[in-house]
Amino acid sequence: MSAAKTHGSLPSDHMYVRGLDANHANHVAISPISFIQRAAEVHPDALAVVHGRLRQTWSQTLRRTRRLASAIHRLGIGLGDTVAVMLPNTPPMVEAHFGVPMSGAVLNSLNTRLDAKAIAFMLNHGEAKLVITDLEFSPTMKEALAILKAEHGRTPMVIDAVDAEFNPPGERLGSQTYEELVAFGDEHFMVRLPDDEWQSICLNYTSGTTGDPKGVVYSHRGAAMAAISNILEWDMPKKAVYLWTLPLFHCNGWCFPWVVALRAGVNVCLRRVEAKMVFDLIREHGVTHYCAAPIVHNMLVNAPADLKSGLHQVKAMVAGAAPPAAMIEGMEEMGFEITHVYGLTETYGPAAACEKHEAWTSLDITERARLNARQGVRYHLQEGCTVLDPETMQPVPHDGETMGEIMFRGNIAMKGYLKNEKATRAAFEGGWFHTGDLAVAYPDGYVKVKDRSKDIIISGGENISSIEVEDVLYRHPAVMAVAVVAKPDEKWGETPCAFIELKPGSAPSAEDIVTFCKQHMAAFKVPRSVVFGELPKTSTGKIQKFELRKRAGSAKAIDV
Amino acid sequence: MSAAKTHGSLPSDHMYVRGLDANHANHVAISPISFIQRAAEVHPDALAVVHGRLRQTWSQTLRRTRRLASAIHRLGIGLGDTVAVMLPNTPPMVEAHFGVPMSGAVLNSLNTRLDAKAIAFMLNHGEAKLVITDLEFSPTMKEALAILKAEHGRTPMVIDAVDAEFNPPGERLGSQTYEELVAFGDEHFMVRLPDDEWQSICLNYTSGTTGDPKGVVYSHRGAAMAAISNILEWDMPKKAVYLWTLPLFHCNGWCFPWVVALRAGVNVCLRRVEAKMVFDLIREHGVTHYCAAPIVHNMLVNAPADLKSGLHQVKAMVAGAAPPAAMIEGMEEMGFEITHVYGLTETYGPAAACEKHEAWTSLDITERARLNARQGVRYHLQEGCTVLDPETMQPVPHDGETMGEIMFRGNIAMKGYLKNEKATRAAFEGGWFHTGDLAVAYPDGYVKVKDRSKDIIISGGENISSIEVEDVLYRHPAVMAVAVVAKPDEKWGETPCAFIELKPGSAPSAEDIVTFCKQHMAAFKVPRSVVFGELPKTSTGKIQKFELRKRAGSAKAIDV
Repeated sequence: MSAAKTHGSLPSDHMYVRGLDANHANHVAISPISFIQRAAEVHPDALAVVHGRLRQTWSQTLRRTRRLASAIHRLGIGLGDTVAVMLPNTPPMVEAHFGVPMSGAVLNSLNTRLDAKAIAFMLNHGEAKLVITDLEFSPTMKEALAILKAEHGRTPMVIDAVDAEFNPPGERLGSQTYEELVAFGDEHFMVRLPDDEWQSICLNYTSGTTGDPKGVVYSHRGAAMAAISNILEWDMPKKAVYLWTLPLFHCNGWCFPWVVALRAGVNVCLRRVEAKMVFDLIREHGVTHYCAAPIVHNMLVNAPADLKSGLHQVKAMVAGAAPPAAMIEGMEEMGFEITHVYGLTETYGPAAACEKHEAWTSLDITERARLNARQGVRYHLQEGCTVLDPETMQPVPHDGETMGEIMFRGNIAMKGYLKNEKATRAAFEGGWFHTGDLAVAYPDGYVKVKDRSKDIIISGGENISSIEVEDVLYRHPAVMAVAVVAKPDEKWGETPCAFIELKPGSAPSAEDIVTFCKQHMAAFKVPRSVVFGELPKTSTGKIQKFELRKRAGSAKAIDV
Repeated sequence: MSAAKTHGSLPSDHMYVRGLDANHANHVAISPISFIQRAAEVHPDALAVVHGRLRQTWSQTLRRTRRLASAIHRLGIGLGDTVAVMLPNTPPMVEAHFGVPMSGAVLNSLNTRLDAKAIAFMLNHGEAKLVITDLEFSPTMKEALAILKAEHGRTPMVIDAVDAEFNPPGERLGSQTYEELVAFGDEHFMVRLPDDEWQSICLNYTSGTTGDPKGVVYSHRGAAMAAISNILEWDMPKKAVYLWTLPLFHCNGWCFPWVVALRAGVNVCLRRVEAKMVFDLIREHGVTHYCAAPIVHNMLVNAPADLKSGLHQVKAMVAGAAPPAAMIEGMEEMGFEITHVYGLTETYGPAAACEKHEAWTSLDITERARLNARQGVRYHLQEGCTVLDPETMQPVPHDGETMGEIMFRGNIAMKGYLKNEKATRAAFEGGWFHTGDLAVAYPDGYVKVKDRSKDIIISGGENISSIEVEDVLYRHPAVMAVAVVAKPDEKWGETPCAFIELKPGSAPSAEDIVTFCKQHMAAFKVPRSVVFGELPKTSTGKIQKFELRKRAGSAKAIDV
């Protein structure tokens, strides 16, 4: 037919190659550092950060991040070094997302809810040279530093972040405060973009419910692409006002520090997520957008009515579990619009969204909730999100039934796991990032997570999706939160066991719950055991199923 | 102080390098090809293209562009080959922006208003292997192909685009029609992103009012970054409805074919820009956005009132000349909101925007027009747009007075000029793209073009900005369009000469005009000659000053 090629490299003397190399004028690194510089250039006096009584403009914020970068540099820390932070959603945490990369270093945001042993593991594994830690976490950090010194002989520099207005308790651990560090830096510090946009920008440890956490490494390029995609998913306008309900330590707050800078918007900081505070800040600052785990949205929806008066329209993102109909409905009643997104630490937070279709708006709430409960489609600047058979690496039929594994491909996937080539290779096998989430794909291409591999309950040889059972239970009016796990059973191998947290004032019997389930699912899926009580949750609000598996006596509590 | 580095490369065994290379799962080319694939995946049944009675969805459009790519491939054309198109703003033109790059080839959109000699020059210089040409342009193309064969011995394949519904006159020049070509292709053609995002995607010739046009080469990366930036500048939402008033051959319609795909929006095609048609389409299809030269906006503002009834809010971009107060006011009366952008062929169309500030909304129209008349600040994903002294390459003081040259730097700058290393090196000297536009920078960092170097009038040793004189004349109620050029003068060297196109029904005398000028500018800047009549314009609506200079007898008509 023809010898034409659609791909490959052209010879160096080809007319579309010769004299057309990239140079300093037409090719620069794609990096979030550029975003804050533009915000400060174009909107120097616009509000950038709000925290308690603090009001800080974009030019002030850029100056402070330059000082921070300069101070880190003056401490002898730079390219390829790790700077760890143990901070709540306060201004230093927002600033660290710019100042640390500007110094050439890599930002390791620690999960502030972890124990000393886990923190010590991360500080050792990431080889942190500097630790910035809020006084609230001094007890944990003190113990972690002691372990780090005793077991690994490491003694990073320590800087205390003192949140004077909120005055949290805590001992000083370092020789300097964060403000002293910033003051030590030069506000004229010359900030350059990285020479290579593949340069590492952040290190985030997976929660690692069992086994050692893995250190997920992000690039400047990926962080920028994820941030831009968040804007595209949400149609997020300039000057958006963003409330920090989502922990910034969680996948760098889904890359939103960089999103807010690119929109020259406002970071409304928040030390602690409480319904009254959230609603007050929304009203006071005209918050337009926030992200949160389902547990937070639930808290807001179920808050007393008087807290919710006088609200305007707010856009919210939710990930972690599909938003049940009751949540969507509750949000709509408040005038909030919820977008369901999906991702992992390895994909810079969300990298798929359940993008809505106009035709859905005319459907009833149950049907809309069913459609919205899906994880959806790839982010705008992600290349692929699909369900593959992990054996053959072929797409499963788009029938809403055949299970496979969700896989991602594109610029919104991590560089890999730090010092773990084996795990990195396994994660990227076959040219796709393997999420470990079992899912189906629908005829419209939208994917739906059915379960983590380890969350599937196998009863009498039948697979039961614990999520499916949970979805039904969430529709019960008394249920606040629920988790279903496998309970060993002599006859069936496993049976579903439901752990339920009830709404205040509700008191159904286990029998009521079972009866409700029987009306809505196949008999073999109905939980054989129902346990009421508060559910154990991880620092990011996820229900700790491994803990519940232990309580249910499942072997899976140990071996996964 | 310290040996820390903020930049450079890390050794290959460094923990942030080893095992963390880019791979097929976490790094793909940034390319507009990805945008149409996502639109078709996520919104297959959404409207993509409207033209007369034609309605085409995104899945149909993707299938057709795949077929087009396949057909081109089957013709033996691929990586690094040029495909030239001579098309109005019709569906084949939109499709070519995807199908041609998908085949690996480079799209050369020809300016349909050029003469045969210029077209022949471009087909020869760009080495086009295939030409797709609308029947309307058959006379010019026939002559161009004859010159190409006679003078250069080149005979590219020719495909006729037949716009049946609009049935424009014209002889068939090729052996196949565009529809036959598309039918010849395989709709399952395997589309892959380029291996390297620096791969060339388009070739656009500068208008070259004198001298040979230069061939500006774009990359996949740059095209995608420019497209995303347009969305960010405009806060352009998903499903935007875009009217094709701006010629697609003009910097690839400022990259909007790719913008519309990324928004899964609608391309409303338009063969000819006429006020009635524009307003009818806006109403019929709920157009939300369009771009155009000042001349088009003026035409709309000055259209009869009955054409404008029942309009909704529309966002418009204007470039080419600063929008005068009267235009902004007229647009606002129609409910249209205008954004002033600035760029060149070399910067993928606009790469700077006069981003508005909230504080401006309370100013009166004259002051707002003055602020909006500036070229503004860099695009969101452009790295720099600034006024430098071209001798020292240092920024001029931000005083609104000191002249320098506007320069751009970043990912929204061309790869270079095709087969012209000398011009490419000169354009990028010192690590910046030199626009050739003289400008000042204001204290807020916004830049304002004062003139093209060649448009400055030097009278008695004083520099007169022709744009400044034009700005005043545009405020005269009888003036529809104006251009001021240098007229040789024995005593003063040069004096300003104003060419004025009047609004219908107006008939001021030359003396009226001069009197008006004297009230609004220094005496030495007042035009000594005033000439009334229609102004000569380029194909993109720019006033042809070189032609007017000729009429004024200026030496500059020849030597620049």
